[in-house]
Amino acid sequence: MDTRLSDLRTRLAEVEDLQHALRLLQFDQQTAMPAAGAEARTESLATLARILHERQTAPELFGLLDALAGSDDPLVRVARRDADKARRVPGELVSEATRAAADGQRAWERAREEDDFAAFLPHLRRNIDLAHEYAACFADEIDEPYDALLDDYEPGMRTADVRTVFGPLREELPGLIAEAAESESHPPPELVGPFPADGQRRAIRAILERVGFDESSWRLAESAHPFCATIGAGDNRLTTRYPEDVLESPLSSLHEFGHGLYEAQIDPAYARTPLHHGASLTIHESQSRLWEVFVAGREPFWRGAWELLHPHLDGRLDGHDPRSFVAAIGAVRPTLIRVDADPVSYPLHIVLRFDLELALLSGDLAPRDLPAAWRDGMRALLGIEVPDDRHGALQDVHWAAGAFGYFPTYALGTMLAAQLWETATGEIPDLDARIEAGDLAPLREWLRDRIHRHGRSLEPRELIRGATGRELDAAPYLAFARARAHAPAA
Amino acid sequence: MDTRLSDLRTRLAEVEDLQHALRLLQFDQQTAMPAAGAEARTESLATLARILHERQTAPELFGLLDALAGSDDPLVRVARRDADKARRVPGELVSEATRAAADGQRAWERAREEDDFAAFLPHLRRNIDLAHEYAACFADEIDEPYDALLDDYEPGMRTADVRTVFGPLREELPGLIAEAAESESHPPPELVGPFPADGQRRAIRAILERVGFDESSWRLAESAHPFCATIGAGDNRLTTRYPEDVLESPLSSLHEFGHGLYEAQIDPAYARTPLHHGASLTIHESQSRLWEVFVAGREPFWRGAWELLHPHLDGRLDGHDPRSFVAAIGAVRPTLIRVDADPVSYPLHIVLRFDLELALLSGDLAPRDLPAAWRDGMRALLGIEVPDDRHGALQDVHWAAGAFGYFPTYALGTMLAAQLWETATGEIPDLDARIEAGDLAPLREWLRDRIHRHGRSLEPRELIRGATGRELDAAPYLAFARARAHAPAA
Repeated sequence: MDTRLSDLRTRLAEVEDLQHALRLLQFDQQTAMPAAGAEARTESLATLARILHERQTAPELFGLLDALAGSDDPLVRVARRDADKARRVPGELVSEATRAAADGQRAWERAREEDDFAAFLPHLRRNIDLAHEYAACFADEIDEPYDALLDDYEPGMRTADVRTVFGPLREELPGLIAEAAESESHPPPELVGPFPADGQRRAIRAILERVGFDESSWRLAESAHPFCATIGAGDNRLTTRYPEDVLESPLSSLHEFGHGLYEAQIDPAYARTPLHHGASLTIHESQSRLWEVFVAGREPFWRGAWELLHPHLDGRLDGHDPRSFVAAIGAVRPTLIRVDADPVSYPLHIVLRFDLELALLSGDLAPRDLPAAWRDGMRALLGIEVPDDRHGALQDVHWAAGAFGYFPTYALGTMLAAQLWETATGEIPDLDARIEAGDLAPLREWLRDRIHRHGRSLEPRELIRGATGRELDAAPYLAFARARAHAPAA
Repeated sequence: MDTRLSDLRTRLAEVEDLQHALRLLQFDQQTAMPAAGAEARTESLATLARILHERQTAPELFGLLDALAGSDDPLVRVARRDADKARRVPGELVSEATRAAADGQRAWERAREEDDFAAFLPHLRRNIDLAHEYAACFADEIDEPYDALLDDYEPGMRTADVRTVFGPLREELPGLIAEAAESESHPPPELVGPFPADGQRRAIRAILERVGFDESSWRLAESAHPFCATIGAGDNRLTTRYPEDVLESPLSSLHEFGHGLYEAQIDPAYARTPLHHGASLTIHESQSRLWEVFVAGREPFWRGAWELLHPHLDGRLDGHDPRSFVAAIGAVRPTLIRVDADPVSYPLHIVLRFDLELALLSGDLAPRDLPAAWRDGMRALLGIEVPDDRHGALQDVHWAAGAFGYFPTYALGTMLAAQLWETATGEIPDLDARIEAGDLAPLREWLRDRIHRHGRSLEPRELIRGATGRELDAAPYLAFARARAHAPAA
């Protein structure tokens, strides 16, 4: 048994080493690569993806997994699941999808900049076709094509589950937003730019260092769409952006930090194994949303960190204090851009995307009609008009990168963040006071113990039960949303 | 024939795609990776190197090469040479050498910073052992182990050839340096720092843009040791460093630009083939040295570019004009650091390293005695005392990265640069006037036509004959060195 387990580890480590390279190629593509290097990068990504797939589906790997079938080692269980999934997908499809994702992201960046949906349309079509081909590989074990896509991000979850969970959100949130907007007693205070990019850069660096970012194992870069990439153990990278018209960097950088901290705190004994990753995207997103909404989106943090932000913004925050600042950045009101949305209207942005990607995949919505459907959806769900596609269907990178089925995890993660926060608040003494004092260690350690250290060794449901004592539950989020709709500065 | 050639191209393209990833992993390791990520990076590099070697030695590749044996396509010739060399080396040795190089560089960075040769010693020993193992793979076709190492950088050159070429340098250069030092009529003007790093950053960016660097296909980063990496077609990256005590960045960044321009101007039709690289390191170094010594090291360039440099250095150049500046940065005098050396004493730094690496490999010099041997050599060749190992045996990264046999190409490249410059001066009308005017296109185009575009499709000797009408010849360099020793501002 021991030799076979050690042989399995060797094979899995090689897979992780290849993924390390792929992650760096992608990170660099979005943060540093000159435009003229795109073609060669796409080819390199496609070749590495094909080689990775060969290794993930090597007969020797299945031989070892079969021999270890009796093992209760979580490594064997997770490796079996990954290998069984990989084996269903032809290598050429993997390579082609990787190529399409790289091309798509490049086209998306330009299309978004120039508000040119037509230029993006062929890439969208190609990615939808590839998503269908991918889903077809799992035809015998899914109820509808979207199930196969969702399962890559949220193992074991079905489209029907998402429909059920999103029901109460569809039902209750539009009313809460309307109430907040009509509430005369809480006119949201304004944050008026421009917010100088250089000042934001300095401030964000200092703020990140306050929560746990350090030079020895973290890097901060810039990209068109903020993201987090853990290249390998000890190499955690965040990206953000510093638009001068909207002050989004304080929240979005803490969001990405939440993702990064999750990976950074996984048990180092899992390094170079498939256990050294987040358990699912819902769990991942619960971590990013917890830091964004419940740490950086609340007053205690800014009472302590105000001097790290305020002096760097050329007096733009002069009329504000931590209370009014938090009320402003979290003010409940319909907005066009998902990543700038307040935490009450945010899930409706996700509901819109879920509806649209289901319709795109079922064929009910033709890709060319996406911008119009987006406008209709925003009108119906959030009651606002979308002026152009940059602020509409072109705002997110996901579909450009072929990531259908990803969006629901954002809303599920937001709900789980509220549930975790409720538990943490009950278990960590004086949590708000510690956050105000810049002592984030108790929160980091609580998260490490309950969630992070386990990596993929526990299933998402086990993790949630272990951390909060119950299943994923919409109640804490809805309670938070109701309170926030009526008292923006809470 | 056509199908087999196209199959060959597919296989070779895959090899290039893997090398693309390896180059990025290495570039990132030296420019961005946080220290804690080193272990995972080393493993990823080792795995990719092993996979690359598998592909380079696949039986199917040899089948295709055998079938194409009659072809006079330079691609087939170069691919055959690469494959024959790769087949002699076991994959495990390649992987181990990659791992040792990554570990060695990491250890070297720390050892150099802390002037701690003892901490570096085990890595040096490991790399020497690996170099022996590597050379042993070629035992039947070499005269001495160093031949096998040299051949990787300078195809077809033998250790004996280097000894012969270095003879006149050993003989004549020490005298020229002594004459320059004793020449009362040319006291070298002083450049006195500190030279603010931020100002250097701004100046170097502007200076590089003057010679042909542009954002669409170039990147500039910082690293402990300046280098150039072409990740893939259209993705050219330079690194430099900005020490405040020595103003080395104006020359060293133009040096790296010369390397980058070479790769950038290779015929794009060769992309994703083994022809899309420099023909040898001597040819490569001739390009970097040409831009460093004959463009950035001479007065015409600075007459035009003075305002890009002078205003950024906090008045440190106030007492200078382009003439005195050039005299100062190129002043012939013995110095401790190779990359800061003037072009007359520079080859002696190389002679020292060549002697030492030969002695390390033959066993005549024990690794632990390297610092002492370095001091003795510097005294004998350049007449100066080495105060510590940071300024001695720890100054270069090459041995840390396992690159034995690389150094001679620096001196050979310097000689070839002089020969090319002599030819270019005769063929490009008003070259100095154009350089002063910031019109570098004629020089870039001349180099593209004579050297760059050919990539590896011509052998180094063919390239040299094609560009200059004769074999590599020490005379132009020695003529230049004699003139420079007696008239530093020439």
